[in-house]
Amino acid sequence: MVPTWDSTIRHELDLVEEEMRGSVVSEQELLTEISLYVIGSGGKRIRPAIAILSFKACGGTDVPKVVKIASAFEMIHAATLIHDDINDHGDYRRGRVAAYKKFGTQKALIAGDFLFVKSFKMGGTFDERIVGMVADACTAIAESEMLQSLYEGDVDAPVDKYLKIIEGKTAKPIEAGARVGAYLAKADEARIDQMGEYGLAIGMAFQIIDDILDIVGNEKTLGKPKGVDFVDGKPTLPLIFAMADAEHGPEIKRLFLKPDKSHQDAEEALALVVRTDAIAQSRRLARQYTDKAKAALSELPDTEYKASMVKLADALAERDT
Amino acid sequence: MVPTWDSTIRHELDLVEEEMRGSVVSEQELLTEISLYVIGSGGKRIRPAIAILSFKACGGTDVPKVVKIASAFEMIHAATLIHDDINDHGDYRRGRVAAYKKFGTQKALIAGDFLFVKSFKMGGTFDERIVGMVADACTAIAESEMLQSLYEGDVDAPVDKYLKIIEGKTAKPIEAGARVGAYLAKADEARIDQMGEYGLAIGMAFQIIDDILDIVGNEKTLGKPKGVDFVDGKPTLPLIFAMADAEHGPEIKRLFLKPDKSHQDAEEALALVVRTDAIAQSRRLARQYTDKAKAALSELPDTEYKASMVKLADALAERDT
Repeated sequence: MVPTWDSTIRHELDLVEEEMRGSVVSEQELLTEISLYVIGSGGKRIRPAIAILSFKACGGTDVPKVVKIASAFEMIHAATLIHDDINDHGDYRRGRVAAYKKFGTQKALIAGDFLFVKSFKMGGTFDERIVGMVADACTAIAESEMLQSLYEGDVDAPVDKYLKIIEGKTAKPIEAGARVGAYLAKADEARIDQMGEYGLAIGMAFQIIDDILDIVGNEKTLGKPKGVDFVDGKPTLPLIFAMADAEHGPEIKRLFLKPDKSHQDAEEALALVVRTDAIAQSRRLARQYTDKAKAALSELPDTEYKASMVKLADALAERDT
Repeated sequence: MVPTWDSTIRHELDLVEEEMRGSVVSEQELLTEISLYVIGSGGKRIRPAIAILSFKACGGTDVPKVVKIASAFEMIHAATLIHDDINDHGDYRRGRVAAYKKFGTQKALIAGDFLFVKSFKMGGTFDERIVGMVADACTAIAESEMLQSLYEGDVDAPVDKYLKIIEGKTAKPIEAGARVGAYLAKADEARIDQMGEYGLAIGMAFQIIDDILDIVGNEKTLGKPKGVDFVDGKPTLPLIFAMADAEHGPEIKRLFLKPDKSHQDAEEALALVVRTDAIAQSRRLARQYTDKAKAALSELPDTEYKASMVKLADALAERDT
C-alpha cells in the first residue's frame, strides 16, 4: 500500500482532535456543542498537519507542545469559518448546514468569539515570538477579509489584489504554522524561513485550487454547492481570468454584476467559465506555487516527514475535494 | 475644587488612549477607522481605570506594563460591544450610531475580530498567569452572552441567573483587570484577592446601575434610547423585580412577551415599572455591592489611589449616565 501524506503523523493528528475537543468544554453546553459541531465536521486539517510536519521534519521531539499550537491554529480557522459563513450567508460547510443556519446567527457569532479566545489561550502559553506569529497571522486574516469585502462584486478586480487576499486569509496562517513548527523544533533561522516559504506557497496553491473547485468541483465530494463565490460576487482567480476572456468575458461579467443572482445565473456563468482558458490558467499558477513549495524543501534532510511534505504538496494540487 | 475619582490617574488614562490608537493601525484603513470609531467614542474607561488604580494602590511602578494590559482590557470590551450590537440590533452606542449600522454588519464583524486579535497580542506578551486571567475573563464574557441569549424573552428568568449573566459579562472582566493590576505591582496573593473582590463587586454594581438607567436614565446623557433591554426581551434585574409586582407585574409581562414591541409598548411598560418598587429594590442591591467593594479595600494602605477607588465606587453607584 502506498502511504498517504498524513500516514507519518496520524498519531499527532489524533492528539490534535483530542486537544481541540478538550479545550472547548464549557459550562455553557451550547458553546461546546456549536464548537464541536464546527471542529468535528472534519475538514482536511491542513493547518495542524503542516505545523506538525514542519516540526517533525526539523527534528522536533516535544510532541505535546506542537500538538497544542497546531490545535490553536485549527481552532482559529474554525472560528473564522463560523464568522465567514455569517458574513457570506454560506448555507453549507463541509457537507453540513453552516453553524449560523443551524444554531442562529447570534449564538454562532458568540461561539466564534469563544473559539478565538480558546485558541488564544492555548497560543498565549508560548513565548512572545510564537504569540507574535499567531497574532500576526490572525491580523492578516482580518485584514484580508476586509480587503476581500472591498472587492466584492468588482468585475475589474486585479489579479494582484486576489493574490494579496488569499495570501492573508489562507497562506499566511499556514506559513505561521510551518514557522512555529520549525521554531519549536529549535531549527535555525534559515530553516525556519524555508519552512515558512513552504507553508506560504502551499497555502497559495491550496486556496487557488479551492477557488477552482468552486467552479469545476463535484458538489457531493465538496460538501457544498458550486458557484458560491460567483453568487457572493467574489472575484476569484478563475473568475478574474474568465472575465478577461475576449469571447465569453462580457457575458460572464454581466451575470456577475446581477444583484440577486439565481442558481440558473450561476450555472450559466460557470458553463461559460469552463469554455475559457481560465481553469487551465489558474491550475498553472497553482502548480507554480506547488513547485515553489517543494523547492523550499531542497535543503531539508531526507526523512519520512520531508517525503510527507512533498506528497502533501502534490496531493493538494491534484485534489478534487 | 473636589478632585474626581480619575484625577490621580489622568496621565495613565491618557497613555491608554495613545496605546489603543497606536495598536489598531492597519494597512486596511477601514479596520483602523472602525476601531477608532468604536474606541474613540469615549465610554467611561472603567476597565482600564480599575486595572491602573489597583496597580497604583498596590505600589506598582512599571507604568508602561499596566498601561498595555489596561488597554487590552478596554479593547476587548470594544470588540464585544461591536459584536453585541450586531446580535442585539442596538442602533445607538455612546451617543453614536452603532458600528454595524454605520459600516455594515460584515465589516463590523471583521473589525470586532481584529480588535480581539490586537488585544490578545497585547495580552500575550505577558506571562502565563496574566494570559490565563485575560483569557478566562474573555471566556466568561462569551459564556454569559450565551446564557443571556437563552433567557431572552423569558418572563420567569430567576434573579440568580441574571446575577450570573452580569457577573460573566461585566464583573469578571473588571475583576480580572483589578487582579492583573495588583499582580503586576507584585502584590501578595491576599492583596490580589482583595483587589479582585473590589473589581468583582464594582462590576456587579456597575451593571445593575446600567440596567436601571435603561429604564429611568436620561436619553440625552445616556447617548442611547431607553428601554432597549425591554425591547430586546432582556430580563434585567429591575424588570425581573417589576414583573413580580402583584399589581403591575402581569401587564408588564404581557408587554414583555409581545413579539414585535413598539416604542409605545416600551414606554407603557417602563411607566409601569417605575410605579413598582423595582428600581428602589435594584438600587439597594447595587448599593450592597458598592459597600462590598469598599469593604474589600479595608486592609489597603491609605493612598490617593485608594481614595480614588472609594470615590469611583460611589461615583458609579450614583451616576446617571
